[in-house]
Amino acid sequence: MADQPQSRRFDPARRFPTDLPATGALMPGDPVGARRFMTVTDGRPFALEGGGRLYEITVAHETWGHLDIDASNAVLICHALTGDSHAAGGIASGHPSVGWWDDLIGPGRAIDTDRYFVVCSNVLGGCQGTTGPSTINPATGRPFGSDFPQVTMRDMVRVQKLLADRLGIERWLSVVGGSMGGMQVLEWGAMYPRKVRSLIPLATAAAAGSTQIAWSAVERLSIVTDPNYNGGDYYDAPDGHGPWQGLMIGREIAQITYRSAEVFERRFGRAHHDPRSEFHPWGRFEIESYLDHHGQKLVRRFDANSYLVVSKAMDLHDIGRGRGGVSAALGRLNVPVLTASISSDTLYPPYQQAELHDEIVAAGGRCRYEIIDSPQGHDGFLLESEQLGPPIRETLERVEKNDV
Amino acid sequence: MADQPQSRRFDPARRFPTDLPATGALMPGDPVGARRFMTVTDGRPFALEGGGRLYEITVAHETWGHLDIDASNAVLICHALTGDSHAAGGIASGHPSVGWWDDLIGPGRAIDTDRYFVVCSNVLGGCQGTTGPSTINPATGRPFGSDFPQVTMRDMVRVQKLLADRLGIERWLSVVGGSMGGMQVLEWGAMYPRKVRSLIPLATAAAAGSTQIAWSAVERLSIVTDPNYNGGDYYDAPDGHGPWQGLMIGREIAQITYRSAEVFERRFGRAHHDPRSEFHPWGRFEIESYLDHHGQKLVRRFDANSYLVVSKAMDLHDIGRGRGGVSAALGRLNVPVLTASISSDTLYPPYQQAELHDEIVAAGGRCRYEIIDSPQGHDGFLLESEQLGPPIRETLERVEKNDV
Repeated sequence: MADQPQSRRFDPARRFPTDLPATGALMPGDPVGARRFMTVTDGRPFALEGGGRLYEITVAHETWGHLDIDASNAVLICHALTGDSHAAGGIASGHPSVGWWDDLIGPGRAIDTDRYFVVCSNVLGGCQGTTGPSTINPATGRPFGSDFPQVTMRDMVRVQKLLADRLGIERWLSVVGGSMGGMQVLEWGAMYPRKVRSLIPLATAAAAGSTQIAWSAVERLSIVTDPNYNGGDYYDAPDGHGPWQGLMIGREIAQITYRSAEVFERRFGRAHHDPRSEFHPWGRFEIESYLDHHGQKLVRRFDANSYLVVSKAMDLHDIGRGRGGVSAALGRLNVPVLTASISSDTLYPPYQQAELHDEIVAAGGRCRYEIIDSPQGHDGFLLESEQLGPPIRETLERVEKNDV
Repeated sequence: MADQPQSRRFDPARRFPTDLPATGALMPGDPVGARRFMTVTDGRPFALEGGGRLYEITVAHETWGHLDIDASNAVLICHALTGDSHAAGGIASGHPSVGWWDDLIGPGRAIDTDRYFVVCSNVLGGCQGTTGPSTINPATGRPFGSDFPQVTMRDMVRVQKLLADRLGIERWLSVVGGSMGGMQVLEWGAMYPRKVRSLIPLATAAAAGSTQIAWSAVERLSIVTDPNYNGGDYYDAPDGHGPWQGLMIGREIAQITYRSAEVFERRFGRAHHDPRSEFHPWGRFEIESYLDHHGQKLVRRFDANSYLVVSKAMDLHDIGRGRGGVSAALGRLNVPVLTASISSDTLYPPYQQAELHDEIVAAGGRCRYEIIDSPQGHDGFLLESEQLGPPIRETLERVEKNDV
């Protein structure tokens, strides 16, 4: 009560990074870890769904296990918005985090690398080795930046198909992914029905809905209004600063949508973090410190332009576009599908996966639908491996035996 | 498909206002409409809960109906985060919108101005006539800006109590409000148990929870990272620009949390708004245009510093602070309480109002609890007047007759 009036003046240096590279993208000279690189274009331009062309596309990918002689045991893993090819494996030079699905992928695990040849590639437009906005534009010798064209899920999947061709994989035993990964899984089924034997789209949707678009739209606005964004051309900023603040705020927004009020309440409640008084305008509660931590972590490993391109691609996701609508497109999926909801997911609510199931079944298709009972929110697709493992394992085994 | 590659370069002028006053606050010389002004301080400093003092506090307020000779028919209305004193009444000079609860307050309506003397004041720290960051600081002759101290719900309520004293109101028939208004209602009950005969806190919480703090924290970060925020001192910016972008983005985040996925999906679906191609990186879906509309609307009528001060006051809301915790504080409420939930409210979820009810009843208090069945989300407390009206009307009538 005896405090003097406190200035509301906000000190960005107490809150945001000040000493990072302008981008968290994998840049030339960085350690590449387990990634391999494949140029999938052949000199001819790659025409994108929304217009625009790319003249050279390189795909960073990782593999686990061994491909059978008849190439029948290959499983494709598709990553989510800020994921990358490091779906499995430990921390190592070039891989600051454990694989994002390491609990599911490995010897003896649900996606058993003793049995399957598992592939995960960084998406087109990404920033961890596959061609994207931080890649050098051959036309200018500088990173694409704002000149990188908008890509779609279908473009990403076409690039994955070119990679499969080069890896000698005629047909995937399964294509598996959650969230944006699940969007790619669905597009695989719609674009290449003869190239897949099963589909496992988790915590995803047939088409991005209004609220999903709303969140990613405000996340993108946070990025582009950061003065250090500089219209997308920040890679060579004279002061070395990238749009850290904008990307960090965008991630903080997203992080709230990825979890659940139940988890936050239980973990943080109203606990106060800062040494400053609770009443200080910029004193942080624990939940704020948690969000800052996640924001800063993303800034270290991601690229703002990739965030813009890839999240817009998610907004553009609509399995029904040009195919007579969602029902018609889902109705034509002719392989077994396993989908799952996280019960507490408010970003990709269970009704969206129920819709996948219902439309597929209504059209005479095969679909198994699991509801994962979990308080973890959307991130449950990354965290609930104990519950997700068994149905995934069973689906793969039955497809192997043609018993679905 | 024939489009040329599109630059991702973002054009702020297509998206954000460029020609507004630096603040949407009510400033000297602006038409005041139905507002009246009362200086509630008496020359002595007003000490704030969190430290800091204010030497002069003026309160903008509006009234409807007539005060009985025994001053027994007065009802106080408390507004939410971006509300103001214009709870009822039409559009007029100084009042660009219809009163925010006009369907509930008026002759013959639930809060019947033929029977009751209804008062609504702009909160301390606000920007529509009550002392706040956009007010001239007598010490400097310029707006407080970043020097305005942090206030709390309790400070706001103490100021309302000073106003009541000056209006000759010894005891309110009821104190009524939703969201942040409901926080003030609860504090009235805890701070001045003899000054209220009933409490009607709607769609609110005993204490701000982690997720509520999370949202307002990222909204505030959006504001302070706008370069035009200038540390809070933007009122006299040489270029006349205020932190419009930051406040607009903050409001867009908030707007998503105020409604529901069901409402957005039904109203907007995946409809595209822009004349530009759907694939243009900055082509907007209808939902984005809707959010921009709400963001721009707020920028015209609100002040960025007030947003920071008042939303932080919401985070600091904890009815149990210094009172032995939430249960103890609620258990001491000794007047009839009516609370209500909006079934689809994800920002102030129904369990928070159920907690109010349960704690009050467990301690032997009187509490009526209504669940309003509505898809409108948190904003249901503003929109569902047909459902909210009857229980509010009944509560007021029974309190009048001492029949509760």
